[in-house]
Amino acid sequence: MQSELTADIEPIRFVGQTDGTLELLDQTRLPVELTVIRCSDVETVWEAIKKLRVRGAPAIGIAAAYGVVVGLQTVGDEDAAAFWKRLDEVTDYLAGSRPTAVNLFWALDRMKRVAHQLRDAGQSIAEIRTALVAEAKTIHAEDRDTCRAIGRHGADELKGAANFLTHCNAGGLATAEYGTALAVFFTLQDDGKDLHVFVDETRPLLQGARLTAWELAQRKIRATLICDSMAAQVMREGRVDAIVTGADRIAANGDSANKIGTYSLAVLAKAHGIPFYIAAPISTFDMAIDSGDEIPIEERASEEITHGFGKQTAPEGIGVYNPAFDVTPAELIQGIITERGVISPVTTEMVAKMFAAE
Amino acid sequence: MQSELTADIEPIRFVGQTDGTLELLDQTRLPVELTVIRCSDVETVWEAIKKLRVRGAPAIGIAAAYGVVVGLQTVGDEDAAAFWKRLDEVTDYLAGSRPTAVNLFWALDRMKRVAHQLRDAGQSIAEIRTALVAEAKTIHAEDRDTCRAIGRHGADELKGAANFLTHCNAGGLATAEYGTALAVFFTLQDDGKDLHVFVDETRPLLQGARLTAWELAQRKIRATLICDSMAAQVMREGRVDAIVTGADRIAANGDSANKIGTYSLAVLAKAHGIPFYIAAPISTFDMAIDSGDEIPIEERASEEITHGFGKQTAPEGIGVYNPAFDVTPAELIQGIITERGVISPVTTEMVAKMFAAE
Repeated sequence: MQSELTADIEPIRFVGQTDGTLELLDQTRLPVELTVIRCSDVETVWEAIKKLRVRGAPAIGIAAAYGVVVGLQTVGDEDAAAFWKRLDEVTDYLAGSRPTAVNLFWALDRMKRVAHQLRDAGQSIAEIRTALVAEAKTIHAEDRDTCRAIGRHGADELKGAANFLTHCNAGGLATAEYGTALAVFFTLQDDGKDLHVFVDETRPLLQGARLTAWELAQRKIRATLICDSMAAQVMREGRVDAIVTGADRIAANGDSANKIGTYSLAVLAKAHGIPFYIAAPISTFDMAIDSGDEIPIEERASEEITHGFGKQTAPEGIGVYNPAFDVTPAELIQGIITERGVISPVTTEMVAKMFAAE
Repeated sequence: MQSELTADIEPIRFVGQTDGTLELLDQTRLPVELTVIRCSDVETVWEAIKKLRVRGAPAIGIAAAYGVVVGLQTVGDEDAAAFWKRLDEVTDYLAGSRPTAVNLFWALDRMKRVAHQLRDAGQSIAEIRTALVAEAKTIHAEDRDTCRAIGRHGADELKGAANFLTHCNAGGLATAEYGTALAVFFTLQDDGKDLHVFVDETRPLLQGARLTAWELAQRKIRATLICDSMAAQVMREGRVDAIVTGADRIAANGDSANKIGTYSLAVLAKAHGIPFYIAAPISTFDMAIDSGDEIPIEERASEEITHGFGKQTAPEGIGVYNPAFDVTPAELIQGIITERGVISPVTTEMVAKMFAAE
């Protein structure tokens, strides 16, 4: 069930209440086609997560929470045993869609916990069902608020800048609405600022070209796509006031793992005297690891480089190194923009202070 | 007329004498297919240059010189007027194949000059025809010698290094046999050194992935393909002792224009304490320009980035910046490896000294 979206694009939208439908923007079709998947059964949600039609840790968690609501629609309110059996079925099933996605398990656990608490409190199946819709909407709203707060703090920090560069996609497609790095740009725009953003295409999977360029164009922010190797040149030309990227995991000392190529940008930024920022929610911090040295670098399939988009562009059997991430050391980061404020300078002490704040 | 090449690959080969045939390795088919174009008429040579089946300034000059020989085969030795008319026809025709290729005009002029000198000296058409084959072979041999000498000087300079990184394609495919940057690696291998080379894929046109990776694999040099954005990461991992690239144009002070991404590598190399070298023949120096500031940066079509794999990967109408080259300032270059020796430190005085040497 797919159709054209015309205006007011939201990557994740739940329409209705307990009998509602989850609508997901199919990110695998972007930027060439704008297709919405209407999920009125849990299998469609599962497939969308599995096939990366919805991607980004927060977005996956939100989709899974709504997926629970949709999955429970196959059983009525009158048969409690069937309802509880179905809840286990649905959450187990969705948990198998992307076995390494932490936000997925977190959201499913949260939905189950709410259901069990209300059962223990003697509420009816109908009441529990209503509460689950509310809980999914709360997860969605919390993420929206987090992104908005990151955007607000970032825009305040960077109100003197107008020319930006970003890498990969830390935008609304990966989260609810505003994203993390892109939230800074969206908020500056809301503040009436005329800004320009260079977008690294982000090889090998081109999230910058496919997703970030699309999001910026969608919001009519002036954007220029470049190859990753051109970032140094635009810095040298004096066309970048600040660099902002997202992060996948941040150590207790502020060392930040993000899409491969981020470290390169941070080194180049320093050489050109340009401040480099990370924008990420507090949930990205892994306080159990002291520094980035403890973050393992995932290597991905060589075909992502040798067969970009289905066409062979390198000789058969050539050796390939394809690290998915790199780690930018804290000393290269001017500030980490969180929903609680900006951590700057980036030190173990300052991270601990922000982490402890509410 | 195409067939499989099996062993002992030479990108440009002339088989026979005045009635000979030019064989060109079709670089547009690499690395997936190994196809040789047999040129027994000048139209096939013209098409090969035009369609980039043969590319790289020296290689184009060599192909054009042999193209003159092939083109003259349509007229016999008995009709002098027809011969001279045909010589003009053929050289004008070939000159139109790539109107911006300086080596092309240089080689064609050199062939015509030899013919006219011998005519003035009273030689017969048959003798002139034989001399033209010899002249084309001399152009070819001179370039081979230049590349070999660059390789020798580079291998002496870098004999303490084993782990390299290179960008784009400065190899045998662009020249006769050994190339420039790759000549250093080939010569180190000839010296019995066990070396490893990281190859930047070199977006947008992927010359590293398509050509350099292929050339190194062909010679069984251990090579690992990476995306351009991964170069900083392999430097940080301590896996690069030196970086060597080619150059397209070098100013009198040593500032070097080369494929976009080269400047980025030079900045990253400095930050990691890794020496960065340029390998290029003396003919690459443009002594008429004092510094790199005077080198205009060519911008190429946006489709190279937005439709890079024959597939649209960026939103319709997005702004694109696609500089073909960047300029690496002399102070970031440890040495420029030429056929006459290594210029180091890279200063206006040292460049002038090497330029004046024989």
